[in-house]
Amino acid sequence: MFEFRVRSTDGLARAGTLTLPHGEVQTPAFMPVGTHAVVRGLSADDVRRTGAQIILGNTYHLHLRPGEAVIQQMGGLHRFTTWDRPMLTDSGGFQVFSLQGLRSIGEHGVEFQSHIDGTTRTLTPERAMEIQWQLSGDIAMAFDHVVPGQSSSADACEGMERTLRWLDRCKARHAELAGQRDSGTAGQREHTGGLLSGKQTDPLTCLPAYPQTLWPIIQGGIHDELRLRSLEGTLERGPWTGIAIGGLSVGELKPVMHRILERLEPSLPREIPRYLMGVGFPADLLEGIARGVDLFDCVAATRNGRHGTAWLPTGRVNVRGAPLKGSTEPLDPTCDCETCTTYPRGYLRHLFVVEDMLGLRLISIHNIRFLVRLGEQARTHILNGTFDGWSREWLGRYYARGD
Amino acid sequence: MFEFRVRSTDGLARAGTLTLPHGEVQTPAFMPVGTHAVVRGLSADDVRRTGAQIILGNTYHLHLRPGEAVIQQMGGLHRFTTWDRPMLTDSGGFQVFSLQGLRSIGEHGVEFQSHIDGTTRTLTPERAMEIQWQLSGDIAMAFDHVVPGQSSSADACEGMERTLRWLDRCKARHAELAGQRDSGTAGQREHTGGLLSGKQTDPLTCLPAYPQTLWPIIQGGIHDELRLRSLEGTLERGPWTGIAIGGLSVGELKPVMHRILERLEPSLPREIPRYLMGVGFPADLLEGIARGVDLFDCVAATRNGRHGTAWLPTGRVNVRGAPLKGSTEPLDPTCDCETCTTYPRGYLRHLFVVEDMLGLRLISIHNIRFLVRLGEQARTHILNGTFDGWSREWLGRYYARGD
Repeated sequence: MFEFRVRSTDGLARAGTLTLPHGEVQTPAFMPVGTHAVVRGLSADDVRRTGAQIILGNTYHLHLRPGEAVIQQMGGLHRFTTWDRPMLTDSGGFQVFSLQGLRSIGEHGVEFQSHIDGTTRTLTPERAMEIQWQLSGDIAMAFDHVVPGQSSSADACEGMERTLRWLDRCKARHAELAGQRDSGTAGQREHTGGLLSGKQTDPLTCLPAYPQTLWPIIQGGIHDELRLRSLEGTLERGPWTGIAIGGLSVGELKPVMHRILERLEPSLPREIPRYLMGVGFPADLLEGIARGVDLFDCVAATRNGRHGTAWLPTGRVNVRGAPLKGSTEPLDPTCDCETCTTYPRGYLRHLFVVEDMLGLRLISIHNIRFLVRLGEQARTHILNGTFDGWSREWLGRYYARGD
Repeated sequence: MFEFRVRSTDGLARAGTLTLPHGEVQTPAFMPVGTHAVVRGLSADDVRRTGAQIILGNTYHLHLRPGEAVIQQMGGLHRFTTWDRPMLTDSGGFQVFSLQGLRSIGEHGVEFQSHIDGTTRTLTPERAMEIQWQLSGDIAMAFDHVVPGQSSSADACEGMERTLRWLDRCKARHAELAGQRDSGTAGQREHTGGLLSGKQTDPLTCLPAYPQTLWPIIQGGIHDELRLRSLEGTLERGPWTGIAIGGLSVGELKPVMHRILERLEPSLPREIPRYLMGVGFPADLLEGIARGVDLFDCVAATRNGRHGTAWLPTGRVNVRGAPLKGSTEPLDPTCDCETCTTYPRGYLRHLFVVEDMLGLRLISIHNIRFLVRLGEQARTHILNGTFDGWSREWLGRYYARGD
């Protein structure tokens, strides 16, 4: 379980297979984001049909609504959402640090105000582990201290060092939870009336039906030296079944992100998957894969979809645009998604004009399939040893219109 | 084509089969409403999975957006929407007469202002036929003069008599259009470059790939005598392949609607389907079927779905309600729809709480399936001769909570 096998490499790019309790993930792979236990506007079946192998859930949002106790009581995120493939949960770190003015940070953790009802809550490394345990995803993420993209070296260093100290606490608490599960001391409560009775339960006494692993997150802002120290400190605390690079794509320039990936890559372990958090516009996937990244997530696919922006191999297109009016052509003739193989693009435009939510859904489906397929195509080219030429050509065509 | 066969009767209730160019409709049947060429928020596939056999499109809304020329150019409503089963279009009469203060009525037709852009438009019996011809549904409805539910006898009489005079004009124009099609004088333009070139085309020279029939509408408000005169005048202008009862469920009391149906029934032709327009809450279906109605349509299924109100055999339920929190039970354990067979109702509640549009869609799917299935169940009981007892029992259970 949690095994990762690199099948082939091509330059720094890797084609691998990650084995998780709910199934295998062929990498490189894009993970759609299911913020509120739903990939915005899509059914689990819609998402499955895009070929997505793993999705992400948000600890911060799910803690607020419906609350981890409700999800645990219903049998965990998989049974709650009916998504039966692998799932990763973030730790809530990124969200609570984004709550400018609504949170205070200390060594113990982060005290913050709910953006829903203003109630005061506290998230600590331990609580982040407990909540994710209750959510029952395949992969839990460490609780990290995220700093803004342009932070000074001093600020970035503080966040990076705290992230390492918190990693010790995450690891200890996760090991406690996993140890209870493995020793079976509370196994008899699994999926019983006690779990489903609706009362709040100590997470230590309720066990997910499946094992869960913990992945650490490298921080350090845009400062190479800090990034390398973060990586070194993280690996000292290992071994890990996967490793994430956080705090990128938060305002810094693309070349800075690429440089940091390039500085980290030689020191990243070969044998575990690398997850670049919050990154996932089409070009970012290819640039990341070329620098040895295996996993990506980003809300852009669904956010753009809701705004009527579709990704095509020739760049972005606004589905509301007049050129699509009356067109019987598919949105993307090269795409195999439900939207492109079923609907004329003149109908997609009409759905946006009359503001029917079916339009948002159909473009989100296309955009997710676009990124999932890009991962599949990259994998094929890595296995064939043709990744570099293919990705250069792909990026050239995508940017040809200067978009 | 357009044949209707009554398979069995039970009291006044009828089980029939209507044959249309795009397939058969087993009656009694509920038709979901696709106002803007989309059943609000649902894909054609979602609607097919509810078992719906026929859907309705709105001439008024489609005339405004995207315009009948665009739909014709794309091959008609079926190819535009990818809905491949039968489709009926209304005439726009109900919508334009609802535009209080924005329309002026004359013998020629109705001049009205678009609620979208304020432009002045004219709808006449002839234009209503032409637009519906361009939309290419299986069944076109006559352009009628609808009066408010509580109209005086004089007002209702004026609307009813005008509806008859307009029926002559509808019939003449529809016959012209159908005649051109049948004689094949313009058949060579069908689905050719000329059709797809984007330029406006005279509807007379563009022919749907399938034949279309015209159904008249009985008016007369809440006045029995006027209703009977409307029916008589309508039948004098026949023969027809179907007949509709309009202007009900527009503010009058339920017993009044039932009384009118009972007064009309003995004079309605046995051999053609009867369509009760705009009616379709669950109990209305059973009450209508018991009075000899074969077809229904109503936006309540999707409108309630969007507001989180689901129909159950035991009455309505608010999906947002606290009792559903954390529940792993299906919404309706007796229902075979995608929503009820897939999702725990605690998850449906969560989707409404976080305002994800998937919730709206899943409840709309359930509500449509609820009405479609009610039609299927009624049909089975009519064929078995057990309709009366079953429908009484059903209504008793549905109203048991006093809802």
